[in-house]
Amino acid sequence: MEDLSFASASQIAGRVASRSVTALQVVEACLGRIAVHDRSLNSFLNVMIDQALDAARRVDDAVRAGRPPGPLTGVPVAVKDIIDVAGIPTTAGAHPRFHVVPHEDAPVVARLRAAGAVIVGKTGLHEFAYGVTNANPHTGSVRNPWDRTRSPGGSSGGSAAAVAAGFCAAALGSDTGGSIRIPASLCGVTGLKPTYGVVSTAGVVPLSWALDHIGPLTRTALDAGLLLSVLAAAPQPAGEIGRGIAGLRIGIPRHFFWQHLDPAVEASCGQALAVLAEHGAAILDVVIPHAADAGAAATLILSAEASAYHERRLREHGEAYGEDVRVRLDRGLFVSAVDYVLAQRARTFLTHEFIQTLSDIDVLVTPATIAPAAPLEDSHQAAASLAMSLEYTRFTNPFNLTGLPALSVPCGFTAKGLPIGLQIAGRPFDEATVLRVGHAYQETTDWHLRHPPL
Amino acid sequence: MEDLSFASASQIAGRVASRSVTALQVVEACLGRIAVHDRSLNSFLNVMIDQALDAARRVDDAVRAGRPPGPLTGVPVAVKDIIDVAGIPTTAGAHPRFHVVPHEDAPVVARLRAAGAVIVGKTGLHEFAYGVTNANPHTGSVRNPWDRTRSPGGSSGGSAAAVAAGFCAAALGSDTGGSIRIPASLCGVTGLKPTYGVVSTAGVVPLSWALDHIGPLTRTALDAGLLLSVLAAAPQPAGEIGRGIAGLRIGIPRHFFWQHLDPAVEASCGQALAVLAEHGAAILDVVIPHAADAGAAATLILSAEASAYHERRLREHGEAYGEDVRVRLDRGLFVSAVDYVLAQRARTFLTHEFIQTLSDIDVLVTPATIAPAAPLEDSHQAAASLAMSLEYTRFTNPFNLTGLPALSVPCGFTAKGLPIGLQIAGRPFDEATVLRVGHAYQETTDWHLRHPPL
Repeated sequence: MEDLSFASASQIAGRVASRSVTALQVVEACLGRIAVHDRSLNSFLNVMIDQALDAARRVDDAVRAGRPPGPLTGVPVAVKDIIDVAGIPTTAGAHPRFHVVPHEDAPVVARLRAAGAVIVGKTGLHEFAYGVTNANPHTGSVRNPWDRTRSPGGSSGGSAAAVAAGFCAAALGSDTGGSIRIPASLCGVTGLKPTYGVVSTAGVVPLSWALDHIGPLTRTALDAGLLLSVLAAAPQPAGEIGRGIAGLRIGIPRHFFWQHLDPAVEASCGQALAVLAEHGAAILDVVIPHAADAGAAATLILSAEASAYHERRLREHGEAYGEDVRVRLDRGLFVSAVDYVLAQRARTFLTHEFIQTLSDIDVLVTPATIAPAAPLEDSHQAAASLAMSLEYTRFTNPFNLTGLPALSVPCGFTAKGLPIGLQIAGRPFDEATVLRVGHAYQETTDWHLRHPPL
Repeated sequence: MEDLSFASASQIAGRVASRSVTALQVVEACLGRIAVHDRSLNSFLNVMIDQALDAARRVDDAVRAGRPPGPLTGVPVAVKDIIDVAGIPTTAGAHPRFHVVPHEDAPVVARLRAAGAVIVGKTGLHEFAYGVTNANPHTGSVRNPWDRTRSPGGSSGGSAAAVAAGFCAAALGSDTGGSIRIPASLCGVTGLKPTYGVVSTAGVVPLSWALDHIGPLTRTALDAGLLLSVLAAAPQPAGEIGRGIAGLRIGIPRHFFWQHLDPAVEASCGQALAVLAEHGAAILDVVIPHAADAGAAATLILSAEASAYHERRLREHGEAYGEDVRVRLDRGLFVSAVDYVLAQRARTFLTHEFIQTLSDIDVLVTPATIAPAAPLEDSHQAAASLAMSLEYTRFTNPFNLTGLPALSVPCGFTAKGLPIGLQIAGRPFDEATVLRVGHAYQETTDWHLRHPPL
């Protein structure tokens, strides 16, 4: 059998539906690859071997009966372990005292299965998704496939590492301050945070009700669109993504989103703008006057809501939390309601301001993170972990606050071979244009096709 | 000229449009009545004599030209003085340092004018609408037309007193915890708090963004529907209100909403149920399991949001607030964000629970307040004012928390001649059914036709 480890989801679905390969063969290959290589990456907390093989057989039965189940027929997908999969413990990367075994799939998982996807396992994350390093005292750290001494980014680090390592074609992540886009960027894969509310967050352990989003990590922008069409409660426009970007207006908010950059990030993202210009897009400087205030508002809302969710457990079992998460949750108890309300007012104000900026242009383009993956050893101290959260979410959390769709695509490597990500953000519910820009970029670049030596 | 002081808005609009009376005559009569009788009631903070006469002349010009402006042609309307009227100070019943002269009408005022209404003045209120007594150290207290030693209720006490006294056919109020329904009930007029979001709150001094509602105080449920159709951003179903209520299912939540009642309130509201049964409605006991928790959640949200709005002024000019309002605002600074977030979660939960109850029945009926109007002298102390806020909002604030439409209609008098109100609440956006019940009740009762001797 040919090696489909780095094939796209749509390629795999096509091969399985046309019976040039079976779902069982695809899934067996995935599981074998995980068994051999994930020992050193730790991207999976739970590999669902028996369930995945059973599911693959059912997909093959349906294909043989002439009823391929849908656009993800036979596609192996991993699920971040704060999202419920029926019968499998949802650990949230936390102390065992907090594990729960759900009776039902989260709606997003049910949608994946109905479309023919095979769930291969639950991936590692920053404890309760409340951090960006994936240094995890309960489960051990997920490692970056491009450099095992480094963090994969977070909180959906296991999902990003698993896609990067060719363990699955796609994975689900959650993104409250950048937790899909940051690890996608640092692991060299594609990650989409959809518009707030477009994808259900039911059956997911909450971090912040106002800021939580569920979305896919994939190899390509096309696959991200495919996954979104399955995950979204509302139909997504099909056939828009391949239209090219000639004449599109791309806004570059240099005054905030292009500051304090690692030189390699600055160089790669700058070159990416040249590529987009070659596609015929207009590259325009824009100013979003209060963009620099978004981070404070997002951090304050996140802090209060996370502590509201955890309050009782924190008081009763504070010792069961890792140090960095406990410090953050303790701090959140002392946020005043007045400050929270003012932050919510700022959220409304800033959302209008971002949308206003997007009335003149089609998408905003920024680096996804200020720097590439950091050494894991730097992130074990609580203070360092907190500082990294602020640094790495700087360009991503404004889009959690405002709810706008945002995509990260690979756009280069540092001299040490670490991936760099480009962020593309758009109007509410206009994932199609965001993905269109990402796809055009991927048509004439090959960063997303490179994979780490395992 | 006949005396139209106690005519309904639709009667007045019909007379003016058909030229049996001029708008100028109607408005001059109103202004005369205010000049004579409001000295002892203090319901108006600002009578807009010149502007009202000019507006009446313009309405008459339009009528003579064959273009009566709309369903409120020539109807005199008063506006609670936290709602902007262009060129007139918005005082919010506060210290002069906080007065602002707006350049534009609030959208609700603009809609009234476009429909032909004549704004006759701005009415008194509890300072910043943050209380139920209308004992006001800056403007003096509004007095209850039925007994000048008593509170009109609040915070829209001036609007209720002005309608009750025949100074205008209708008035605008705001309702954050009951501030339309409470004074309507205590002054013997009809008051409607529409569904959250149906009527714009732009151009209104905020008290709580999550709980603020704007609505009409009128003589009849029919008039409340007429005003709502003008005020609402979305079209309102016409012709529904007169359909009768035979077969409607009316739920009586006795376990919370019918407890701790003044005996006269209990007797009058109980008799009202018998009247509704005579109309052919089914009277059914219902249980809303967590209804008793709504008040705490509403009070906490109100407290935090009010303090968020006032925070800066409170720190810089705390001495310019009345004692009861300053105490409440000071307290709100110490609410934790965790408690606020949990209260907002409770709001979502309780809204679902109330809507679930309303899946089986058409409306809920309760007393509007636990007791009739209290003596004004009892309400001057801050502690007494705060206690009265908790008491009088007990049955009304659950419908601010859940956003459901709720109406108060007069349903009797105490032995001392003080009005009593009945509350009718319904499904989101189903004002039509709520008003239908209120109108059926008013077809066979005459409480709403009685007026105080001035």
